[in-house]
Amino acid sequence: MLIPENALRQFAQQVFLAIGCSPEHATLAADVLLKADLRGIDSHGVARLSGYVRLWEKQRINATPDIQIAHETPTTATVDGDAGLGLVTAPFAMEIAIKKAEQFGSGWVAVRNSNHFGIAGYHAMMAAEKDMIGFAVTNASPLVAPTFSNERMLGTNPICYVFPAGEFPPVVVDMATSAAANGKLEIAQRKGSDVPEGWLQDQQGNAVTDPHALKSGGSLLPLGSDREHGSHKGFGLSSVVDILSGVLSGAGYGPWVPPFVAFLDPLPNPPGQGIGHFVGAMRVDGFRPVADFKANMDNWIRRFKLANPIDRAQKVIIPGEPELEAELDRKANGIPLVDAVVEDLNTLAEKFGLERMGNF
Amino acid sequence: MLIPENALRQFAQQVFLAIGCSPEHATLAADVLLKADLRGIDSHGVARLSGYVRLWEKQRINATPDIQIAHETPTTATVDGDAGLGLVTAPFAMEIAIKKAEQFGSGWVAVRNSNHFGIAGYHAMMAAEKDMIGFAVTNASPLVAPTFSNERMLGTNPICYVFPAGEFPPVVVDMATSAAANGKLEIAQRKGSDVPEGWLQDQQGNAVTDPHALKSGGSLLPLGSDREHGSHKGFGLSSVVDILSGVLSGAGYGPWVPPFVAFLDPLPNPPGQGIGHFVGAMRVDGFRPVADFKANMDNWIRRFKLANPIDRAQKVIIPGEPELEAELDRKANGIPLVDAVVEDLNTLAEKFGLERMGNF
Repeated sequence: MLIPENALRQFAQQVFLAIGCSPEHATLAADVLLKADLRGIDSHGVARLSGYVRLWEKQRINATPDIQIAHETPTTATVDGDAGLGLVTAPFAMEIAIKKAEQFGSGWVAVRNSNHFGIAGYHAMMAAEKDMIGFAVTNASPLVAPTFSNERMLGTNPICYVFPAGEFPPVVVDMATSAAANGKLEIAQRKGSDVPEGWLQDQQGNAVTDPHALKSGGSLLPLGSDREHGSHKGFGLSSVVDILSGVLSGAGYGPWVPPFVAFLDPLPNPPGQGIGHFVGAMRVDGFRPVADFKANMDNWIRRFKLANPIDRAQKVIIPGEPELEAELDRKANGIPLVDAVVEDLNTLAEKFGLERMGNF
Repeated sequence: MLIPENALRQFAQQVFLAIGCSPEHATLAADVLLKADLRGIDSHGVARLSGYVRLWEKQRINATPDIQIAHETPTTATVDGDAGLGLVTAPFAMEIAIKKAEQFGSGWVAVRNSNHFGIAGYHAMMAAEKDMIGFAVTNASPLVAPTFSNERMLGTNPICYVFPAGEFPPVVVDMATSAAANGKLEIAQRKGSDVPEGWLQDQQGNAVTDPHALKSGGSLLPLGSDREHGSHKGFGLSSVVDILSGVLSGAGYGPWVPPFVAFLDPLPNPPGQGIGHFVGAMRVDGFRPVADFKANMDNWIRRFKLANPIDRAQKVIIPGEPELEAELDRKANGIPLVDAVVEDLNTLAEKFGLERMGNF
């Protein structure tokens, strides 16, 4: 089913209003989800709406948080999200980072006591609009095992950097630090197909290709897949994200990061509060004139687009290019939703007395 | 051959003095190389000394650089390395970053017109000694092809983060963004053994296991090895490093990064000067009290060490642990050098009238 952007946006807003969010927060949270749906990152858009609602029902998400700066210097700060939506606390933190960067060149904000923040790209792209380099990471529900372990210790912990360009759109590197993101497993599950070796291991630590392996105690593998191919690097990157997001902010970290699914309870006695994020912004003109940087970014992009292709039908893809193509297409033609998501949204519609998807 | 740390350090200093470095620069450059040899990163230690000398002979390294701050804000700066050793310009830049962090919470310095800076870990660890989080990246000779390409467009572009801890030594994530670093190919070449599939491709873009494939126009693969296993993520990370180091500083980037080997000339009309680095420091107490952070870091490390091992004989390795073990061993017992490196150093000894290795 193809849903026009604005209809889906309005629906998401109404759901956030229904759980008690302020109009401002509901609009912002819906905007973050819609950005994911527009950019083709379907696993992080309205497909998660019912998940947020279930966490709110379990009182693990506070719809009316009092988000506060707990600690700061001219260029650093820690924000306490008061158990609010990460969709709201992360843009709040990024606004602070941008203000600090405007004044002092750079700004860095750690967030504790938060929840899932949607796509990292949304937050980091806020900086690029101001001619700044944007950075956003978050820890997440433990699903990934470190190299040599079969225990779920880390989330798919994404890293995002955004660099503004001139003629070209910004370069957006937004990636899970696991070999494959959870959303790719869901696609294989729906298709009933296997996944490649190197994405998953079973509970004993054996390589498996069954996309349901997580349900029987398996774990995702870090980027690199195995030691020989550098999984210790994926583990290292994921650790960086976990420490910046969790340890530095005072949030949960490692196995103590609260699970996104409401049917799993967080571990008792966590060493920190909720999920953690870390965002930052650096003014380009803190290093060189913006026009020079953008001209060189354009040249960088142009040169990499021309890198000799192995197969002439498949050119090199600049990070962020496919997502922008999806955004242009979906803004014009609507957002495709799979049946399971439509059903999920219609259940929410009934719960909150909203218009069903089919009626758009 | 086992060489005592101090003898090797003195030798490296004498070589740097012989090419005209100031005593201060010679001491610093030797310290950076020795740190690599002590930490077991043999490819980045004195094994590279003759390489630096050959670049100096080609007048591509300036032994008496006038290193200057070209541009700055309270928390950002760009340094022009005046074609000096990266072993000297990178610590210079990190000192600036640390000073800015002391004053404003964080500091970030891009470096252009530089050369190979040794191990990233040396520079990032400088910040950890001051209870700061350290960051260091550099671009490097193009050897890595982007996903879908068979053209060498990027270096092995390392990323390093260092986090101070309390009872435990700092967590040091210091990794090439390629599936395998060049040093691992050299080990296989010496042994006459093949390398795993997923490290290399030949000139046509076919997967190969011959460790000499780079010599016949092949290229290294990004972390992730192939598209299915996330090589676009390795390419994305490597791009981040290239843009921060090269585009932001005004250095060369992509295929224009000057090659480390002196027998290859840099490409004509580069869009920037020399190799670029990017370093940074953030005060831990810009986010939360240092004691709280360190207690949580210790807890993080303790918990990850206890992550359930797949094989009881191989526990989870905390990033930086093997390097620290090597450092303690080699400080006590000396630094092992393979014959080819001893021969290389003895050639330098003859060139500059220094004591030969065998005579230590």
